Amino acid sequence: MALRDDKVTLAHGGGGKAMRDLIEEVFTSVFQPPGMEDQARLQAEALAEPGARLAFTTDGFVVTPVEFPGGDIGTLAVCGTVNDLAVGGARPLWLSAAFIIEEGTEVALLRRIVTSMAREAEAAGVRIVTGDTKVVGRGACDKVFVTTAGVGVIPPGRDMAAARVRPGDVALVNGVLGDHGAALLAARGDLALSTELESDCAALGHLMEAILAAAPNARAARDLTRGGLASALNEIAEAAGCGIELDETALPLRAEVTGMCELLGLDPLYLANEGRLVVFVPPEEAAAALAAMRTRPEGEGAAIIGTATPEHPGQVRMRTGFGGARIVDMLVGEQLPRIC
Amino acid sequence: MALRDDKVTLAHGGGGKAMRDLIEEVFTSVFQPPGMEDQARLQAEALAEPGARLAFTTDGFVVTPVEFPGGDIGTLAVCGTVNDLAVGGARPLWLSAAFIIEEGTEVALLRRIVTSMAREAEAAGVRIVTGDTKVVGRGACDKVFVTTAGVGVIPPGRDMAAARVRPGDVALVNGVLGDHGAALLAARGDLALSTELESDCAALGHLMEAILAAAPNARAARDLTRGGLASALNEIAEAAGCGIELDETALPLRAEVTGMCELLGLDPLYLANEGRLVVFVPPEEAAAALAAMRTRPEGEGAAIIGTATPEHPGQVRMRTGFGGARIVDMLVGEQLPRIC
Repeated sequence: MALRDDKVTLAHGGGGKAMRDLIEEVFTSVFQPPGMEDQARLQAEALAEPGARLAFTTDGFVVTPVEFPGGDIGTLAVCGTVNDLAVGGARPLWLSAAFIIEEGTEVALLRRIVTSMAREAEAAGVRIVTGDTKVVGRGACDKVFVTTAGVGVIPPGRDMAAARVRPGDVALVNGVLGDHGAALLAARGDLALSTELESDCAALGHLMEAILAAAPNARAARDLTRGGLASALNEIAEAAGCGIELDETALPLRAEVTGMCELLGLDPLYLANEGRLVVFVPPEEAAAALAAMRTRPEGEGAAIIGTATPEHPGQVRMRTGFGGARIVDMLVGEQLPRIC
Repeated sequence: MALRDDKVTLAHGGGGKAMRDLIEEVFTSVFQPPGMEDQARLQAEALAEPGARLAFTTDGFVVTPVEFPGGDIGTLAVCGTVNDLAVGGARPLWLSAAFIIEEGTEVALLRRIVTSMAREAEAAGVRIVTGDTKVVGRGACDKVFVTTAGVGVIPPGRDMAAARVRPGDVALVNGVLGDHGAALLAARGDLALSTELESDCAALGHLMEAILAAAPNARAARDLTRGGLASALNEIAEAAGCGIELDETALPLRAEVTGMCELLGLDPLYLANEGRLVVFVPPEEAAAALAAMRTRPEGEGAAIIGTATPEHPGQVRMRTGFGGARIVDMLVGEQLPRIC
């Protein structure tokens, strides 16, 4: 049957037939969750393996605009949670998806978001197995918020953690930095910026498996979302109790992004990414890790960007192109734009 | 250290130090998640048992007002997800909690919500192991939205499902109906109703285990949230392909709730509950199930309310106190108030 409305009304959140029609027609017909119960019931042999651990994570997505060059809130909601699992060394298995929808939101927009989610999930090898929808009055949320949670399995013996990084380890990223933040900034429209930039949004589970196959002693990885590369490195330096030294000339940056940042007084190291990670590996595995990253499309721009050092523990420094050095501190508040 | 602000600002969502301070001081200091990584890493022997299944569910909470007699949005967010796991026969293990917070929200309110969540989680025997916070601009959400996801384990051989209900099975509820919906309605304040009513909000995992110990062949259970008892029974009747007959005189209703419903033209069978379930058991196990429910505080008002019938498949009917019968249909749209 076809939904009678082309916009979401409060009745679609009321627990009755209208809600069921919305859920069945827009959500479950696409996600095809297993079974008809309110909960997903799942089995995975990998979870029963002795020494395997379950990984569990969640992330809320509140991006404006909801659709942007290179993706939409649905793409983010799947990739973000897949990546939170992957950077910890977990193989992502299942996602939940909870939608908070503003009254008046177009059903067609929801369909596009759901289609994006299903596509990204399939590419990432995960299933969206359970969900929820709520409808709030006009003005009580910003079109649609999506919260995903993810369950994955960490194979026995795998233990990635920021605290395991030690001096000498090599830091790599998988591509140019800041595309997502810059693309969102431009898409907002109020800066009158014209650009071809697209979000870097991508699921990184397959990339992490390739890295771990090539560099089995990889210590830790982080996805570079809110706060960008700078924040992720500061967290790692603090947890590991060592310093991190970046080589400015080695950072993969797109001229368009650095140009936009100069114009607006932003620093690309703090821009959010949604398909980028930093990984620390022992020096003897760095070349293999780099090569493995470059075999995958989401790693073709991979680069070695720095090393962990015994000096200045807890601090991130950058050797600039002019031979100087500067501290790359953690942000105190926020750097606009807010993009995830 | 103490947060410098007593209200949440956009900086608390920016990925920098302010965000970390908020998360550490308000959230993780209370929830004490295991480990310092972005993902929780967990093990449970019960999950590795041959034939065991993992249950996974999610629910978003957008209640107004955020605090109400008998609970707050945090109580709901824990109990709601615990109950979604429990009614499917799963033993709840772990929860995630994602917060979307409106700029300007009082930090003290967040602390109260977090305290409620920790208390309910402990009582329910689950741990809140991972989370996320986002801050949105003033007016972009309604104070705070909380989305929880839950993971539990379904022991080998346990298979509760609405489709398993068959004619002759007996339906029981664990207490008076509609307290949550009526309490929220009164708490809104715009009806000028004065009442002592409190939400029935409660976690039902221990109750479900007591029921299953006494009635091991229990077929299916549902928590009676949005849409109330009427919606849950319609879903079950449809999935099972049998009729359901309720006895109006057996329904546990509080005079205050029925009075308020009469005043406002509402039907208590559609009012939301947050600590009530309906369970179907074979007739020979009904007395044991009832007795087991009554041994627990959250089941002390338990009652047998009806039976599944071969007649009128898919339909819920109620024998009224006057000897007549009426159809208890599924809501088409929504019945105010929206309370979960």
